[in-house]
Amino acid sequence: MISEKMKPLVQNNSAIRAMFEEGKRMAAIYGAENVYDFSLGNPNVPAPEAVKTAIMDILNEEDSNFVHGYMNNAGYEDVREAIAQSLNERFGTAFHLENVIMTVGAASGMNIVLKTLLNPGEEVITFAPYFVEYGNYVRNYDGNLVVISPNTENFQPNLTEFAEKISEKTRAVIINSPNNPTGVVYSEETLRQIGRILTEKSRAIGHGIVLISDEPYRELAYDGVTVPFVTKYYDNTIICYSYSKSLSLPGERIGYVLIPDQVEDAREVTTAAVIANRVLGCVNAPSLFQRVIKRCVNEQVNLEAYDRNRNRLYDALMEYGFTCIRPQGAFYLFAKSPLEDEKEFCEICKKHHVLVVPGSSFACPGYVRISYCVSYQQIERSLPAFQKIAAETIR
Amino acid sequence: MISEKMKPLVQNNSAIRAMFEEGKRMAAIYGAENVYDFSLGNPNVPAPEAVKTAIMDILNEEDSNFVHGYMNNAGYEDVREAIAQSLNERFGTAFHLENVIMTVGAASGMNIVLKTLLNPGEEVITFAPYFVEYGNYVRNYDGNLVVISPNTENFQPNLTEFAEKISEKTRAVIINSPNNPTGVVYSEETLRQIGRILTEKSRAIGHGIVLISDEPYRELAYDGVTVPFVTKYYDNTIICYSYSKSLSLPGERIGYVLIPDQVEDAREVTTAAVIANRVLGCVNAPSLFQRVIKRCVNEQVNLEAYDRNRNRLYDALMEYGFTCIRPQGAFYLFAKSPLEDEKEFCEICKKHHVLVVPGSSFACPGYVRISYCVSYQQIERSLPAFQKIAAETIR
Repeated sequence: MISEKMKPLVQNNSAIRAMFEEGKRMAAIYGAENVYDFSLGNPNVPAPEAVKTAIMDILNEEDSNFVHGYMNNAGYEDVREAIAQSLNERFGTAFHLENVIMTVGAASGMNIVLKTLLNPGEEVITFAPYFVEYGNYVRNYDGNLVVISPNTENFQPNLTEFAEKISEKTRAVIINSPNNPTGVVYSEETLRQIGRILTEKSRAIGHGIVLISDEPYRELAYDGVTVPFVTKYYDNTIICYSYSKSLSLPGERIGYVLIPDQVEDAREVTTAAVIANRVLGCVNAPSLFQRVIKRCVNEQVNLEAYDRNRNRLYDALMEYGFTCIRPQGAFYLFAKSPLEDEKEFCEICKKHHVLVVPGSSFACPGYVRISYCVSYQQIERSLPAFQKIAAETIR
Repeated sequence: MISEKMKPLVQNNSAIRAMFEEGKRMAAIYGAENVYDFSLGNPNVPAPEAVKTAIMDILNEEDSNFVHGYMNNAGYEDVREAIAQSLNERFGTAFHLENVIMTVGAASGMNIVLKTLLNPGEEVITFAPYFVEYGNYVRNYDGNLVVISPNTENFQPNLTEFAEKISEKTRAVIINSPNNPTGVVYSEETLRQIGRILTEKSRAIGHGIVLISDEPYRELAYDGVTVPFVTKYYDNTIICYSYSKSLSLPGERIGYVLIPDQVEDAREVTTAAVIANRVLGCVNAPSLFQRVIKRCVNEQVNLEAYDRNRNRLYDALMEYGFTCIRPQGAFYLFAKSPLEDEKEFCEICKKHHVLVVPGSSFACPGYVRISYCVSYQQIERSLPAFQKIAAETIR
């Protein structure tokens, strides 16, 4: 019964499900506390208390039909204005409510933007390692994802190959900083060069190229690192933001798309994106959580917990002899597999009840992603296992 | 910058926006209380108090990371089980949690189902008058919507034309009962005949045809009318449900897709639909409201308010000489335009500060949709205007 396009997705899904089932199976056999699952990106730091307070206050103070009702498909105007003002205060920008469209998380935001922009056969470029769903999002609109090979020196993007692969078919580029899976924050210099390349190439190919910045981890940076605000480095930039990580609300599906006035045909693009939000069936971002965002626009989760996890795990892995770039954002370590085939390494980890994700899932074989959005106890308990894995695999 | 597919949508959008702006413009000139807006389907009866109580209790009793976190893309298992059990108790069915996928409302549910089923060029049949977004949903997946002309006798579907228009390209049929815009409830006899036709035609064309039942108004029926449960009349039925109207939560985007075991390739279709939910960017239905549904699964809004509106407005329109079928469900009247061109009639209504939607927006010219999900006061205040409109247009 299912469509031809869905068939490969269904086949591939079995592999993901198998891994998930494996974790459940192991927990049942060895006890959940003896299985160290570092495979998921599900935040373990709770939402700020302000979120709960905001919900209670909204239900007590605001009208039920207003809080739970339809609004403009782009979202409540006061919420969009509050987001624009918060960005302006923090990043020195000059956004206004018309630049902001509330969305069902960043994933839906990216779908809306790609539906708005892509014609069949057009290309979207991204940099390995990358979040594997980008390929599905692009294929939803019959586009092709072009992947730039990883720069394993420092996991900043490979800009030489990037410049070479831009063609007349290129419609958009997706970046993600702080990055999933590497934890790397793209430097100002990187963004400046991306902007320069895109400006030159747009002129050369005779049409605009949109830089889509997927930013669920924007607020998650450590060591005092500043995450550069992408719209400053290239005019034709659209941001897809999510509160999934910054407020630990991944299940609530609340985020926004930001389309600055500087984007080419900004007004038409915005209108089309709002329509895409409607016709793809989201209609609007969940209303109560839009209202929560207005009251919590400058809140964020306790980053110290993630930072503590990061330092403990990173230092231990270094001590045991692993090779890993020190991540400055998000909540992932991207470690080099001591074995050439990282899937074999993942199997050895599993023997020690440690679950990690092979880099080939991010188009970067030879590495593994270790999510440290887990309890500090899990990290502590897992260290002897990592030490044994090191002894078994590092030569 | 925008894609070829989005261009006609953007052009068409200006017309809808113009109507919306007209309402705002009129309210600014004449005062909101002197403009009688019957154009929107935004519920005015508040959500049951149980919804507020449920939210408060969930925030106090359940863990923040659980309530706001990721779960299986299909939704929380206990919520899906609660919905299955509620359906079983009310309709004598035998559903279980695996049949239920939580979705971002019914609109997203329909997108997920159509993405799951449709190959480019395949056809989806629906019956005029119909909710205009169906065409956009089908075109999202490069399908073609085939519209069966209206049966203006009683607005039950025209089954002779239906049987004739089923072809080898037919993949699915969309029905909507209680119906937007007519308020008609499809009879058991209608559903039995649709089931019989689809069974015969599936056999003749050599592949299954899925009946997609769009049911946001299922709980909104009056005069003691029973809305037949569609899965009982045809095995290959998928239901797209929303709590937008039954709990007055349209902004929250919470609903489900029900795929019974009897659907052809049910397991594969379900897997594909869950993947479609993920790759279209919804990922999962909003988590807090999933948990609310578990606690409010048998709640519903105060239907008496809608019923009172319905009776008052219907009786008045009859008295003034309008022609209109008496609706038994939803919250719409679908009145015959006294003028052949119903858009001209809508303009006359506007002169009297009454806003209604032309039937051509539902592929049924010559009629207008009057939404009575408004305050009783608005209905009372609008009656003299309707009386004047009658005097001016009925000959």
